[in-house]
Amino acid sequence: MFNQNFILISLLVLFSFRGNAQNLQQVTSLSHNLMPVPSTLRFTAGRLSIAPSFTVAIKGHSDARLQAAIDRAMRRLEARTGLTFARGLSNDTASATLVIQCQGPGKSIPSVDEDETYSLEVSNSQAVLIVPTVIGVLRGLETFLQLLNGDKDGFFIPAVSIQDKPRFPWRGLMIDVSRHWQPMEVLKRNLDAMAAVKLNVLHLHLTEDQGFRIESKKYPELHQMGSDGQYFTQDQMREIIEYARMRGIRVVPEFDMPGHATSWLVSHPELGSQPGPYQIERRWGIFDPVLDPTNEAVYKLLDGFLGEMAALFPDAYIHIGGDENEGKHWNANPKIQAFIQAKGLKDNHGLQAYFNRRVLEILKKNGKKMIGWDEILHPDLPKDIVVQSWRGQQSLAEGAKKGYAGILSNGYYIDLIQPGWQHYLNDPIPENTTLTAEEQKLILGGEATMWSEWVSPDTIDSRIWPRTAAIAERFWSPRDVKDVDDMYRRLAAISVQLDGYGMLHEKTYGAMLRRLAGPLVSDENTVGTIKKFVDIIEPVKGYKRGTMQNATQFTPLTRLADAARPDSARARDFAKTIDAWLYSQDAFNKSRAVDLKNHFTDWQRTGGLIEGEIIKSSPLLTEALPLARDLYEISDIGRDAVEYLSSGVVATDEWKRTNLALLEKAAQPKAAVELVVIQPIRELVIAAAEQEKRKSMTATEWKKTIKEMAAPKKQ
Amino acid sequence: MFNQNFILISLLVLFSFRGNAQNLQQVTSLSHNLMPVPSTLRFTAGRLSIAPSFTVAIKGHSDARLQAAIDRAMRRLEARTGLTFARGLSNDTASATLVIQCQGPGKSIPSVDEDETYSLEVSNSQAVLIVPTVIGVLRGLETFLQLLNGDKDGFFIPAVSIQDKPRFPWRGLMIDVSRHWQPMEVLKRNLDAMAAVKLNVLHLHLTEDQGFRIESKKYPELHQMGSDGQYFTQDQMREIIEYARMRGIRVVPEFDMPGHATSWLVSHPELGSQPGPYQIERRWGIFDPVLDPTNEAVYKLLDGFLGEMAALFPDAYIHIGGDENEGKHWNANPKIQAFIQAKGLKDNHGLQAYFNRRVLEILKKNGKKMIGWDEILHPDLPKDIVVQSWRGQQSLAEGAKKGYAGILSNGYYIDLIQPGWQHYLNDPIPENTTLTAEEQKLILGGEATMWSEWVSPDTIDSRIWPRTAAIAERFWSPRDVKDVDDMYRRLAAISVQLDGYGMLHEKTYGAMLRRLAGPLVSDENTVGTIKKFVDIIEPVKGYKRGTMQNATQFTPLTRLADAARPDSARARDFAKTIDAWLYSQDAFNKSRAVDLKNHFTDWQRTGGLIEGEIIKSSPLLTEALPLARDLYEISDIGRDAVEYLSSGVVATDEWKRTNLALLEKAAQPKAAVELVVIQPIRELVIAAAEQEKRKSMTATEWKKTIKEMAAPKKQ
Repeated sequence: MFNQNFILISLLVLFSFRGNAQNLQQVTSLSHNLMPVPSTLRFTAGRLSIAPSFTVAIKGHSDARLQAAIDRAMRRLEARTGLTFARGLSNDTASATLVIQCQGPGKSIPSVDEDETYSLEVSNSQAVLIVPTVIGVLRGLETFLQLLNGDKDGFFIPAVSIQDKPRFPWRGLMIDVSRHWQPMEVLKRNLDAMAAVKLNVLHLHLTEDQGFRIESKKYPELHQMGSDGQYFTQDQMREIIEYARMRGIRVVPEFDMPGHATSWLVSHPELGSQPGPYQIERRWGIFDPVLDPTNEAVYKLLDGFLGEMAALFPDAYIHIGGDENEGKHWNANPKIQAFIQAKGLKDNHGLQAYFNRRVLEILKKNGKKMIGWDEILHPDLPKDIVVQSWRGQQSLAEGAKKGYAGILSNGYYIDLIQPGWQHYLNDPIPENTTLTAEEQKLILGGEATMWSEWVSPDTIDSRIWPRTAAIAERFWSPRDVKDVDDMYRRLAAISVQLDGYGMLHEKTYGAMLRRLAGPLVSDENTVGTIKKFVDIIEPVKGYKRGTMQNATQFTPLTRLADAARPDSARARDFAKTIDAWLYSQDAFNKSRAVDLKNHFTDWQRTGGLIEGEIIKSSPLLTEALPLARDLYEISDIGRDAVEYLSSGVVATDEWKRTNLALLEKAAQPKAAVELVVIQPIRELVIAAAEQEKRKSMTATEWKKTIKEMAAPKKQ
Repeated sequence: MFNQNFILISLLVLFSFRGNAQNLQQVTSLSHNLMPVPSTLRFTAGRLSIAPSFTVAIKGHSDARLQAAIDRAMRRLEARTGLTFARGLSNDTASATLVIQCQGPGKSIPSVDEDETYSLEVSNSQAVLIVPTVIGVLRGLETFLQLLNGDKDGFFIPAVSIQDKPRFPWRGLMIDVSRHWQPMEVLKRNLDAMAAVKLNVLHLHLTEDQGFRIESKKYPELHQMGSDGQYFTQDQMREIIEYARMRGIRVVPEFDMPGHATSWLVSHPELGSQPGPYQIERRWGIFDPVLDPTNEAVYKLLDGFLGEMAALFPDAYIHIGGDENEGKHWNANPKIQAFIQAKGLKDNHGLQAYFNRRVLEILKKNGKKMIGWDEILHPDLPKDIVVQSWRGQQSLAEGAKKGYAGILSNGYYIDLIQPGWQHYLNDPIPENTTLTAEEQKLILGGEATMWSEWVSPDTIDSRIWPRTAAIAERFWSPRDVKDVDDMYRRLAAISVQLDGYGMLHEKTYGAMLRRLAGPLVSDENTVGTIKKFVDIIEPVKGYKRGTMQNATQFTPLTRLADAARPDSARARDFAKTIDAWLYSQDAFNKSRAVDLKNHFTDWQRTGGLIEGEIIKSSPLLTEALPLARDLYEISDIGRDAVEYLSSGVVATDEWKRTNLALLEKAAQPKAAVELVVIQPIRELVIAAAEQEKRKSMTATEWKKTIKEMAAPKKQ
C-alpha cells in the first residue's frame, strides 16, 4: 500500500515533532486522490484554505502558455468551489495563495525530451510550485487541482511536499479517427482529460481502409474521395495542435502504409498492387489493398503528401503504421514478385523494408523521425526509428536489445474492454526485465490505443475513461505504485473530475439507457431498472464482438453492448461483498445474509421486469431477453446458496452440479455483452456444498480452497 | 382533452367501418407523443413496420437540403432503433417505406412567409409525405420521427392521417450570447432541438453591455476590445446561418442600441453620451451608457457596421433592440438636451425615435427591415417595422391596432424559471382578443427569450428545454390545444428525444449533482440523496436571484441554484398524489396512507443526511443547510397530517396554526432556490384540522373548500 506507507512516514515525522493525538487525527485522515501518484509525496500537518481571496503570482519566467494554464486552473477551481476569484494575476508573491517559480518556457514544440519536473510545497499560508519549465507548471497545476478537498470548514489543499517527475517520457493515447470519424470536440475534450492525468502524446490514426481523415491541399482527391466528407481541414488540425501544445501535449500523426490504405486507392487506384477500382471499406478486419512499392508514382505522391504533412505537424515524429500487411495482393502480382527477385529482397517482408527505407528517406528529407508498429523492425532500418509494439513486452525488449527505441501498446488496447487493473499491472519494463539499464532507456513509454470499430463520438469517452487514467499512472508513477484497490478508489474520484471537465463517459451513460427504454422512457422507474441491469453487464472482451454482431461502419452504436461499459464498478463491489461474507472470520453471518438475500431478490425482480413489461415495449432490448432470464436465474441460485450457508445446511453435490452448469450457461456472452457477476455466485454455490471443510481450515485455507475450486476453466 | 377527442373521432370513424373489439383495442392504445400537435390528425387502424429494409424515395423536386434532411432523419431513426438501413435513396416509389412528394425548394433564404404545410399519410404499407416545399419536408420528417413507437413485435409508425401547418409564421427562440458567452456548439445543438419542435427563428442577441459577440472586419476594435476574445468570427456565423437554413430556421441578429451598448463604447468612448472611459460591464442590471444620437459619428459607424452585418446575415430583418434606455446620460448632457430642444423632439423618447429613424434609413439602404422591442414604437416610425413585445399582449395588440406587426415575448421569458404550463397557456392572441381578423394577422407569433445572466454553456440547455417545446406548441398548434396534463405527458417523451439528439439538459444534471457532492462524489448513495433533494427544489423565479446572490459575469454557475431546474416533475407528481389521496371518493385511504408516510419518511431521511454527513464534507452544499432542515421538518408535518386523516382524529387549530406557520417559513426562498412541495402539505394540514367538514360535502365541494383555504396569500 504505497499511499499508506507515505502516511505512515509522515506520521512518524509528525510524532517526532509534536506527537499529540490531534495531529494524529488530522494526518491519518489524508487519503489522497492523486492520479498519477507523484514520485515522492509527504503530507504534513496543516491546510491551505481556498477562499475568494485566492490569487496566483508568477516569479521568474512568464509567457502566454503559462498564463493560459493558470487561467484554466483558476476557472476549474472556481467551478468546483463555487467561489469567485479576482481576475488576473497577483503581483505580490509574498501574499499570493499560489506562487509559481518558473525558470524557462520549455521547448517551443512539445518534445519527447521535455523536462516535466515540478515540486509543490503547500503550507498553511501558501502553495509554491517550483519548476524548470512551463511544462512542469502544467503538470503541477493538475496535481494542485487534484489535491482540492473540503469539509465543514470549507475548501482546502492539504499541506504537502511533492517532488515529481515522470517515469517515462512518452505517455500517449492513440485515437483512431478513421474507422469511425471523431470530430474536433472529441479531440479537444480528450486533450483536456489527457492533460488532467499528465499524458503527453496524442497519436492520431489519420488514415485507414475506412477513411482518409486529413485534408491534403496537394492531393485533395485523397480526402475528398476517401472520407465521406468527414476529415480535419488543415486549419482545424492546426487548432488541435495548438490546443495540445498549450497543454504540453505532442500530436503525432499516423498515415498507415503500405497496408490499411484502401481509402487512398479510391482516388488513386493506379498506386495499388491490384488494378482496382477501390471503394472506401465499410467492414471491419484486415483487408488486402496495399500500395505498390515497385511503383515510383507511389513515392512521388508520398513525397508530396508527407512533405505537406511534415509542414503541418510540428512534432519530430511521423508514424507510418506498417502493420498487418498480409501481402496477398503482392503475391498475386507477378510484376511485384519479379521486383523482389530482381532487387534480392527475399520476400514480402523484405519488400516492405524496402518500402520503409524509401519512406524514411522522404521523412528525413523533411526533418522527421519515423515511428511505426512492430512490423517495421528490419535489420536494414537505421537505429533512430521508434517501434510501437502491439505484440508485447518481449517484442519491445528484443527491439531494445538490437538498439531500437520503442513504446508499448500491447496490454493497453482499451478498445478490447479489459478491466482497468489488467492495463494497470501491465508494465512497459516489467520487474523481471532482462534489459540492461542502458537498454531500458530505449523503452520510452507507452500508448493506450483507442481503435474505433465500435465507438461513436457519443460512446468513445466511455471506452477511454476512466481506465486510461490508470494507464497514465502506469506511465508516470514509480513501478511499485501498483495497489489495485487503491487505484480503483482514486480512479472513481478522478473519473468524476474528468466528468466535470467535460468528458461524456458518465453523461452519455444515462442517455444510452434512456434510449434503450424506448417508448417507456418517460418512466423513471423503468430507466432505473434498466440501469440496474446494465450496471452489471460489460461488452464482450477482445475481438469477440465482431464474431457476434455483423456490423459495418454504418451500424448504429446505440444497442445494449454500446450502453454497457467496461470494468463494472458494481460487479467489483459485489465480488468484494461476497468475499467479505464468505471468507472473513465470521463467515456466513446471518444478519448480513438477510441483506444479501434482499440484494439477490432485487436483481431477480430486475431480471423479471426486463424480461416482462420492459422488453415487450422496447424493441431495442429484445436481444436482452436471455440475459434478463439469466439474471433472474442466477439471483435465485445465489439466494439459495446464501440460505444454505447461513442456515448451516450442506447443499448436495447434485444441487451444486446442476447450479454450476446453469451458471456456466449464464456466463456465456449473449447480445455481445456478458453478465459479470457470475464468478462470486459460483463461489457461493461451491461453498454451500463444501462448507463442512471450513471447520477444519483457517480462513485463509478456506478461501484458497474455494477460490481454486471455483476458478473458471481456461478456455 | 384535445388528444382524446381525436381518438374518439377516429374511434367513431372506425366503428362505422369495422366496429369490432380488436380495432377498438388497437386504436384506443394510441396516445401519441407529438409536440407540437398537428392542426389535424386522425389515427386509423394499422401500423407501418420499421425494419432494416426501411427506404426513402423522392417524387418531384429534390435538392441538397432535402437530401440532407432525409439523411439526418434516417440516421436518427437508426440510432433510436439500432437498425441499419441501406445508404442513399430508393428509386422505387412504389415499394419505398417513406415517399416524399415535394413540389419545390421553398425560399432560398428562409423567410417569414415560407409555406410550411405538409400532409403525412401512413398506412400498413407506406408513409407518404406530401408537401409544397422542402420546408414542409423538414417539418413533416420531425413529425414522422416523433411518431416512432415500439412493442414486442418491433418498431413501427402507427397508421395516421395528418394535415398540418403552423398557426403563426414567426416561432422563435432568442439566445443572449452576450451576457454569458455561448459558443458554436450551444447554438448548433439548440438549432437541432428547435427544428425537432418546429421552431423557425433563432434570434441572436449579439451585443450587450457585457459583450460584443460578432466579428466586425470594418471595426475590429469593437469585438476585440468588447468581448474578452469571446465572439463569433464571420466564418463561424456563416456556418451557423447555413446550419439553420438547412433546418428551415431563420437567423435574426440583434444589435442592441442606443442603450445596452457599453461594450461598443470600450473601443469608441467618443460615441457615448458621457466622456467615458468605458469598460465591459461585469454586473447585471440596467446601465446608463448609451450612444449619443446627436453625434453624426455614431451614424457613420452604424452605417459601416450595419452594412457589414446586412451582408453577413441574409435574413430580411435586423433587430435593433431599443429597450431599457433610461436616458440618464442624455439628461446629464446639456448638448444632447439642447439638440432635443433644437429639433423639437420633445423628450428622450422623441430623441430615441429620431435615432431609430436614422437607423431605419441605414437598414433600408441595405434592404433590411427593422425589428425592435416595444420601446421602438413611436408615431414617427413607418408601419413596416416589427415590434417584439416584452411588455405583453396588450402592448402587442395596441401596436396591431395602429397597424404594426408584432411578436410576443412577454410570458415566454424562460430565464425567469416559471413552470412550463404558464408559458404554455400564454397566447399571443388570447381567446378574448378585441383585435379584428385583419389586425390579428399582424400578430406574427412569438419568441421564447433565453437571457443569459444566470446560464453557462453547461446549464443553458436545462433552462431552454424541455419547456421551450411547450412554447413551440403554443406557436404552432391550434389555440384550443391546451390540455396541461397531456402537454406534460408528451413533454416528458419529447424531452428524452431531445436528449438523444444531443441536448444536455438531462446529461448535465447528473454532472452538476456530482459536483455538489464534492469529496463524497464517488459514493453513489450520496449523489442519489442529493438528487432526491434537488429534484424537489427549483431556482427562485423572476428577478429574485439577483437580489439574493451578489453575482457578476465571473461568478461560477455551479451552485445549488444552477443544479436545480425549473418546473420540477417530481413536485408535480407529488401534488397529484396528494390530490388523489385527499380529494378522491375514497379519500384518506389507509393503505395508501402507509405509502405516503413512507414517502415522507424517505424525504425526512434525505433532509437529515444532507444536513448531517453530506454538508459536513461538501462546502458547495453549505448554503443548503436551512433547506435541508426545512425538508426534514415539512416531512414530519406531512406525515403527521396523513396520520390524523387516515386515523380520523381531528387535528387541533393550534396544531394547524403552528404547522402552517412552519410551512410558511419553509416556503421562503433560501440560497436562491425554493422547496416546491410545500403547497400540497399545506392542504394536508388544513384538511387534517377541517376533516369533519367533508362529511357534509361532496368530493368536489370538499376539494374546493380546502384548496381555497390553502391558497397562498398574494404577495
